Amino acid sequence: MSGETIIPVILCGGAGTRLWPLSRRARPKQMLDLVGGGSMLALTAARVADAELFAAPLVVAAADQAEAVEAELPGLGMLILEPAARNTAPAIALAALTAEAEALLLVLPSDHLIGDPAALTEAIRRAAPAARAGWIVTFGMKAERAETGYGYVQRGAALGAGVHEALRFVEKPDAAAAAFYVADGGYDWNGGIFLMAAGTYLDALARHAPDILKAAEAAMAGARRDGARVHPDAAAFRASPAQAIDYAVMEKSDKVAVAPVAAGWSDIGSFDALYDVSGKDGDGNVVVGPGLAIDARGCLIRSEGPLVAAIGVEDLVVVATADAVLVVPRAASQRVKEAVERLQKEGKDSWL
Amino acid sequence: MSGETIIPVILCGGAGTRLWPLSRRARPKQMLDLVGGGSMLALTAARVADAELFAAPLVVAAADQAEAVEAELPGLGMLILEPAARNTAPAIALAALTAEAEALLLVLPSDHLIGDPAALTEAIRRAAPAARAGWIVTFGMKAERAETGYGYVQRGAALGAGVHEALRFVEKPDAAAAAFYVADGGYDWNGGIFLMAAGTYLDALARHAPDILKAAEAAMAGARRDGARVHPDAAAFRASPAQAIDYAVMEKSDKVAVAPVAAGWSDIGSFDALYDVSGKDGDGNVVVGPGLAIDARGCLIRSEGPLVAAIGVEDLVVVATADAVLVVPRAASQRVKEAVERLQKEGKDSWL
Repeated sequence: MSGETIIPVILCGGAGTRLWPLSRRARPKQMLDLVGGGSMLALTAARVADAELFAAPLVVAAADQAEAVEAELPGLGMLILEPAARNTAPAIALAALTAEAEALLLVLPSDHLIGDPAALTEAIRRAAPAARAGWIVTFGMKAERAETGYGYVQRGAALGAGVHEALRFVEKPDAAAAAFYVADGGYDWNGGIFLMAAGTYLDALARHAPDILKAAEAAMAGARRDGARVHPDAAAFRASPAQAIDYAVMEKSDKVAVAPVAAGWSDIGSFDALYDVSGKDGDGNVVVGPGLAIDARGCLIRSEGPLVAAIGVEDLVVVATADAVLVVPRAASQRVKEAVERLQKEGKDSWL
Repeated sequence: MSGETIIPVILCGGAGTRLWPLSRRARPKQMLDLVGGGSMLALTAARVADAELFAAPLVVAAADQAEAVEAELPGLGMLILEPAARNTAPAIALAALTAEAEALLLVLPSDHLIGDPAALTEAIRRAAPAARAGWIVTFGMKAERAETGYGYVQRGAALGAGVHEALRFVEKPDAAAAAFYVADGGYDWNGGIFLMAAGTYLDALARHAPDILKAAEAAMAGARRDGARVHPDAAAFRASPAQAIDYAVMEKSDKVAVAPVAAGWSDIGSFDALYDVSGKDGDGNVVVGPGLAIDARGCLIRSEGPLVAAIGVEDLVVVATADAVLVVPRAASQRVKEAVERLQKEGKDSWL
């Protein structure tokens, strides 16, 4: 590592509704303790706590999450507060503009699970030389099943130990393609964790998404600082296109690499995914909070308050908060969004 | 009616758990508004509000329900507060001891539904002569299906217009017997509504259940009165056997009659029964309180507070209160008792 540390850039702007009613506007998924041991954000920061390898984390978050982030991360280095949500490419640009061009940035979603953090750390160490050599490295998570909801990245020629050129990206393939990728063995899930030099990223933006770079530069030029908090200029940042780094940069750049790793990754993008990564009782039930599972099998029963009694049901999600209850078959748990859409349409904001 | 009114005796001592978590120790089923328009108790009293036919109601209730009963029934005549639960035969005895021997008592459960109160009123008018002639009349509710959870009464020879001698009682028959009773047409459900002279009842107790009569007499002899409230002597009443009127009197007396009536009766003894008597949307869902039924069919969704979103489920009961949520297939809704038993066993009294 040449004695230089990596700056973790934790992206905390997500406002996911896929875990409604647990996740809410005021309490997005990264603030939830989903697997025990702390919020997803706190667990993310804990993975990059080794001061030999990592600098204090830089967090990019929505402005209304400032207090919540600071409460979760006492060791925060810098907190960039997005005046508006513009997806990941502009958010990372704000962070990159605060660093030296040679500094390595490790971009981390704040709401994903890494079951084996040590494996990820090793992969980061292996990938660092490629990143210093100007490659944008994505970490290829071992594809464990033919999941159609994820992005895939195909490995090409080896660039070094455990780092390959990325041949192509495929976002949310159909079932047949996903099955082929898993059977083929040459594809990984694109886990949304990236390692690159700040200058590499800004150069790629200049070439492939200049409007994003321009908006981010103007926003940071007009930024107001307040301790660790950075408030980019709102009007300037709002002018940025909203694009994911995957589309804006990864799929277009020439020097994109993939570092495969079996890190027990999950984006916990649905209650079914949460069920998969949670400990189960002898009947295959996950019960968190006050719950009674009577002759129930394969259920996710989770409550933040009311006692939930589930009797004689199978493969069902029952999630209760103080003000809302969700009941949906586990296999249909992505349909939560239909409830959220209905609430939005009916203006029932207190439940969002 | 010979100018004399009938005294409604409303039995309000039930502490049913079959509608948990709606029904609770502190708020038994008769205090719930299950079908709209008021509590089951208030609806019961409204059925006997015709002052031409009925005196002000006499209510027998558990002592801890005194305030709740008075709040529901401003027109209450007398409120007898049971020092302990001893089932219906002793409760009716307390009421009968306050009346003239010739007075007719109409005994009514406080937590049953009568869809057609006018039909019941007509049946009461038809049955009054038999009651005055010394018969204990039960109202035979039209048996609409081969229900195994109810009691049946077989009609014998006619005693007058719409009143028959009761040949025999069968409590909770097996499925084959229940199917036979319905097909036969000569059987009714025993709805637990009785009409008889106070003296007739006390005579029957003296003959068939003298211990009950003795305990009730002693309890009323030592009763303390406080406005409309009557507090029978606790020690004396506790000495009574706990027996239902059906066992103590109806199955043993010689002069028992049945007055058949199609009154749209239901004991609402389960959430499935509540579903049956409730209005449904186009998908066969009953939604009461804040609820979203999305691609759901045949569900009972009922909430007293939290928003309940049910997505892609069928024939399911989802009932939420501020502190508890029940999820059970409609066809298994009687299994609620297993949750209640578990809570009792685990000492979780706050949820009972």
